[in-house]
Amino acid sequence: MALKKKPVTGMKDVLPAEMQVREYVMEKIRETYKSFGFSQIETPCVEHIENLTSKQGGDNEKLIFKILKRGDKLDVAAAQSEEDVVDGGLRYDLTLPLSRYYAGHASELPAPFKALQMGSVWRADRPQKGRFRQFVQCDIDILGDATSLAEIELILATTTALGRICPGNSFAVRINDRGILKGMAAYCGFPEESYDQIFIILDKMDKIGMEGVKAELKEAGFADEQVEKYLGLFADFGAGSGGKEDEAARDGEAGDGAVSGETARGEAEKRGERASEKVRRLGALLSEAGAVDPQVPEGLAHIMDTVLEVAETSFKLVFDPTLVRGMSYYTGTIFEVAMEGFGGSVAGGGRYDKMIGRFTGMDTPACGFSIGFERIVTILLDAGFTVPGAGEKKAYLFEKGVSQEVLSQVLREASKEREAGVQVLVAQMNKNKKFQKEQLMKDGYGQFKEFYRDALKR
Amino acid sequence: MALKKKPVTGMKDVLPAEMQVREYVMEKIRETYKSFGFSQIETPCVEHIENLTSKQGGDNEKLIFKILKRGDKLDVAAAQSEEDVVDGGLRYDLTLPLSRYYAGHASELPAPFKALQMGSVWRADRPQKGRFRQFVQCDIDILGDATSLAEIELILATTTALGRICPGNSFAVRINDRGILKGMAAYCGFPEESYDQIFIILDKMDKIGMEGVKAELKEAGFADEQVEKYLGLFADFGAGSGGKEDEAARDGEAGDGAVSGETARGEAEKRGERASEKVRRLGALLSEAGAVDPQVPEGLAHIMDTVLEVAETSFKLVFDPTLVRGMSYYTGTIFEVAMEGFGGSVAGGGRYDKMIGRFTGMDTPACGFSIGFERIVTILLDAGFTVPGAGEKKAYLFEKGVSQEVLSQVLREASKEREAGVQVLVAQMNKNKKFQKEQLMKDGYGQFKEFYRDALKR
Repeated sequence: MALKKKPVTGMKDVLPAEMQVREYVMEKIRETYKSFGFSQIETPCVEHIENLTSKQGGDNEKLIFKILKRGDKLDVAAAQSEEDVVDGGLRYDLTLPLSRYYAGHASELPAPFKALQMGSVWRADRPQKGRFRQFVQCDIDILGDATSLAEIELILATTTALGRICPGNSFAVRINDRGILKGMAAYCGFPEESYDQIFIILDKMDKIGMEGVKAELKEAGFADEQVEKYLGLFADFGAGSGGKEDEAARDGEAGDGAVSGETARGEAEKRGERASEKVRRLGALLSEAGAVDPQVPEGLAHIMDTVLEVAETSFKLVFDPTLVRGMSYYTGTIFEVAMEGFGGSVAGGGRYDKMIGRFTGMDTPACGFSIGFERIVTILLDAGFTVPGAGEKKAYLFEKGVSQEVLSQVLREASKEREAGVQVLVAQMNKNKKFQKEQLMKDGYGQFKEFYRDALKR
Repeated sequence: MALKKKPVTGMKDVLPAEMQVREYVMEKIRETYKSFGFSQIETPCVEHIENLTSKQGGDNEKLIFKILKRGDKLDVAAAQSEEDVVDGGLRYDLTLPLSRYYAGHASELPAPFKALQMGSVWRADRPQKGRFRQFVQCDIDILGDATSLAEIELILATTTALGRICPGNSFAVRINDRGILKGMAAYCGFPEESYDQIFIILDKMDKIGMEGVKAELKEAGFADEQVEKYLGLFADFGAGSGGKEDEAARDGEAGDGAVSGETARGEAEKRGERASEKVRRLGALLSEAGAVDPQVPEGLAHIMDTVLEVAETSFKLVFDPTLVRGMSYYTGTIFEVAMEGFGGSVAGGGRYDKMIGRFTGMDTPACGFSIGFERIVTILLDAGFTVPGAGEKKAYLFEKGVSQEVLSQVLREASKEREAGVQVLVAQMNKNKKFQKEQLMKDGYGQFKEFYRDALKR
């Protein structure tokens, strides 16, 4: 019987050219985090169905690929519902498996535990262009470190990794703290139970701008006075007037809001200013009003100052009080990295001190980054990126019917070049040698060497 | 709700130490085959259930992890059998997905196509020590090359890869051809329909020895005369008296049966002998009797001669007429690599010119190797193997409460060392510094640097 030739709906076969880029990105990530003392780990792709459906995964739980029970445990005819026939599922993210892993192995792991995971996850999403049902996630987490060293090292390592993947590409790290986010809402007198609703609207700042946010808040029934006060804070301490101009506005305020790594360090010092000044001013305002614990803005300012003092990679570090990040499990610092020409964010994360405990029953401070692996690969491929330092590629073509001696000579020469790091393809010459060479050139083979039965012909 | 902490039955969490060895082995494999012009590819872990149950997978089809249909397509209450509720499954090997991949993408791929795959496969086997339900397979295949260049390059690349993974480890490649296997049976007058039965018994030579094979063949009802003639051939042309001594016997017959790569090349030339002489003698005997096409032994001899003339890695190449390899899909050359101290084989493969066609309807010559990835990793771990060239590991410990300035200094120093390739862990000093250091030493951190609030204390 002939096979179905296409992969299953929503999943893809990776062709050699894409695979090279994927391996390149993985290798850069691996090498960078390793140098920062992170350990790579792996968990099985299959998880207990009970773990996957424990209500910690939000909407992702609706998208699980479930796995059928086997043997005596399975009785399809008698089964009434899914629960009767499944006992496992494919993981939908790497956070749940990490929690399980940490709960099961904490005593065997260093403390704090700095983990790097790169692995496939599966979601039965509606298939659409550029979104697949199997895709690679890349998570970097520090478990068991309550100090801001976790944030500092995560930002340093992640900006280093991104800088190595796309050298010469400029990028910006936006940073905020859930405590400041709440403090600003408290300062303006919004009731605590409406924070989530407010943040969902605030999160649209990028798309609908200041005026849009104002309109939506009023529409949602919040008092004019509170809304005006709230928007006034953003006008003073962050984010421009919204929309595309936002970026420009943000870029322009390097005075106290944004300075870029290494190079900007000197400049900022010259002016006697620090990237964190805006955070400190806002923090003073909020804490005087009792809306925030003064340690929260001070902690964030400390993270920003240290990152900028140490960073070797050049990037912009921006305090952005409008940064929300959807996931409600964040408890402190939150950050997002955007790269020029990459549209949205390419990495994001934050501190989530309560989640591991909820999963495992062991309270564990945690902070992490997730790198948009598939997004980075797609954009590199679209840009026609070629893996740097991939080495020379040579093709040795030999005439059909060459003697054993000639073939051995060809292979010995290939062997020497391979040892020296050259990628050598040995192939029999086709009748249409011109076409064969054209195909090989498409594959990146730039040099050819030909071997004939009659050595003189060569 | 607390999670189940253990991974699902039969699958495992990979701890950092094992992960390092896994990555090391993968990297060596990747770099070696790449230098030989192989392209790494990937297929989804999920396959169509129709493809997985097409009867090409033998017993593995009984071990499939099946995936439940989703949405409207699923009606558990009305379902009568598995077929009603599943539409996919986890791949049980990499050969079936490769066939599908090749059928779907042949026009986009170079011809011949040299593919490297490293990926997880799943089998719901009975869990047992050292055998897991999710494990990595590593397959290397050349599709679309009917010439012996495929065999030669596969043996050269695979021995190079194994030599790099375990430098200093001596290993042996045993080689045979299904045509010779059949020719020997034909020469002795066995009926063709009993070949499979005979080969299953012959395959036990390693375990039960010459006498054991003889007894089993007679017990199975084959005529004494034929059996004696058959065993006589093996006495003349290969394999010793069986059991453990076999290895020694084989090792001893370097005269014409086995010579080791580079170093042995010179010696064999001195004696005017070639590794392939035994193949040629046996070939002459069989082809004179009309039991084999003379091109078959000549082709095998050519492969052996060329490999030995070219090989840069030192290994033994042995013609072993008792080599069967279970899979009935092999059509020509078969080979197996054993490594000293690795018990059984660490890699094996052969030519399978009919399989891709059966799967896809397109006749395609094919030849491949499968490397026993998990076996190699297990043995390296058991032997306490440490990844060579993993680089220096240093830990920087700073006292709690150091100033921003000291912390920045610590991180800047770390940054410089990381750029230089050193793996630097930065951590806050614990109260029990001695214990902390002991733990870090277990993790491979050999050097420590301490930073105190009062710099003079350092």
